[in-house]
Amino acid sequence: MQTKTTIEVRYPDCDMMQVVHHSIYPVWYESARMDFFREMGFSFSDMNKLSVNPAVVDLHLQFKASATYPQTLTVVTKIGTFAPRKIQLVYEILNDSGEVINTAETFHIWVGPDGRAYNIEENLPDVYEKIKKAAL
Amino acid sequence: MQTKTTIEVRYPDCDMMQVVHHSIYPVWYESARMDFFREMGFSFSDMNKLSVNPAVVDLHLQFKASATYPQTLTVVTKIGTFAPRKIQLVYEILNDSGEVINTAETFHIWVGPDGRAYNIEENLPDVYEKIKKAAL
Amino acid sequence: MQTKTTIEVRYPDCDMMQVVHHSIYPVWYESARMDFFREMGFSFSDMNKLSVNPAVVDLHLQFKASATYPQTLTVVTKIGTFAPRKIQLVYEILNDSGEVINTAETFHIWVGPDGRAYNIEENLPDVYEKIKKAAL
Amino acid sequence: MQTKTTIEVRYPDCDMMQVVHHSIYPVWYESARMDFFREMGFSFSDMNKLSVNPAVVDLHLQFKASATYPQTLTVVTKIGTFAPRKIQLVYEILNDSGEVINTAETFHIWVGPDGRAYNIEENLPDVYEKIKKAAL
Repeated sequence: MQTKTTIEVRYPDCDMMQVVHHSIYPVWYESARMDFFREMGFSFSDMNKLSVNPAVVDLHLQFKASATYPQTLTVVTKIGTFAPRKIQLVYEILNDSGEVINTAETFHIWVGPDGRAYNIEENLPDVYEKIKKAAL
Repeated sequence: MQTKTTIEVRYPDCDMMQVVHHSIYPVWYESARMDFFREMGFSFSDMNKLSVNPAVVDLHLQFKASATYPQTLTVVTKIGTFAPRKIQLVYEILNDSGEVINTAETFHIWVGPDGRAYNIEENLPDVYEKIKKAAL
Repeated sequence: MQTKTTIEVRYPDCDMMQVVHHSIYPVWYESARMDFFREMGFSFSDMNKLSVNPAVVDLHLQFKASATYPQTLTVVTKIGTFAPRKIQLVYEILNDSGEVINTAETFHIWVGPDGRAYNIEENLPDVYEKIKKAAL
Repeated sequence: MQTKTTIEVRYPDCDMMQVVHHSIYPVWYESARMDFFREMGFSFSDMNKLSVNPAVVDLHLQFKASATYPQTLTVVTKIGTFAPRKIQLVYEILNDSGEVINTAETFHIWVGPDGRAYNIEENLPDVYEKIKKAAL
């Protein structure tokens, strides 16, 4: 499973160099991740009801080419690796010429209602099945 | 009473025109407002403990000259008008040449623990006295 | 003429109060304004080629109700007043229940290639005709 | 050589989880990097005059503990590795208890006036000496 999220560059996303500032990409990757989880059947609202969330513990971005305003981009999102207590997502951003301009991996620890690491397999077996299926 | 808040322009605050984007100013005015309330003796942490906050209902900014990176600015903050349930703050931003580059007024309704309008004079008479004194 | 711009609230647009922070609205109004100008026939790219831009000199927002994540909003944009050297735009933001949660007016001075006030009627009569028509 | 940059968390840096959103950290690391380069004797203004800049090509952050508002943090910055055409900076963010809450590495390619990779050792030997000395 992979999702495609459309991003419209906004004017203030660009800096004095006329290109999107590097701090904007993590926001786009988060939007893409939210789309992925919703599509997978475990949306932000579902997480919120259960007080469960995939806390970012590691964020790694590679900048290959720049983006600017106005431009429409696409973020492609997939699961990298996963385990009962954690998940890695991998991403690519393509510009409208189909060129990959940015890639990233984010690692997440599932955090439960008590603010501690949370075992999805044990606590939410149906969600874990969805992750397994989405990762194929 | 008036407070002075020092602001360092950050690189990504500037846009493709090489000037600070207009959406950054409300963030600076909020920092300045927080400084003003702390100095007055009713800090954000105090508000937080009581679940009381000055909700922004009206934001009005006048842009007179631009700012850029790197630059150090000063926000001067004062009370404009006030009443038991509301308060107006007025601000000026000066650059390092002492030129006023931006002015603003923000209007706030005091919101209480129930999420409704809150009468500061009745509920927190000591805070109301501080506001009165600060407004002189 | 009026344009409708769809806004998806992003997770980091919301603050510790669980609502969209007030500094995000000016970014949305700018996106809406860019849509309006493009629709009117004088896009950001057109402005860029001519080194002409509508500099924000006054920004006035009224907060009526809050927005949160995830929510889809609509910004409705129209011309308020205009003259050869300036233009005012007026806006409303509606949530998905059709409730107006925010209104705003922005005033702009047209700035030309020399960085000074620019007379659109004299320099770009065809654009001025488009403004006149859009303002009807 | 290492620099220490003081960061005041701002209210809108925090998200619905009451903690600083992960997309804010790259902005702090950039401020810290600018401080480091200025202290080293090759400031942003110097770079700007020469149309030279250290483009971010890889950004890697590790999240160990959260930060919130109001809090004062310290970013410690050092050179990791370097070569004539590139430089790596390594960082740690400490909270006011001295706890390391975030670490990062950023990799940069020096880009010259023509928008292409730039050999600092050949073109700016005095700056390269400063880098060498700072990296000891």
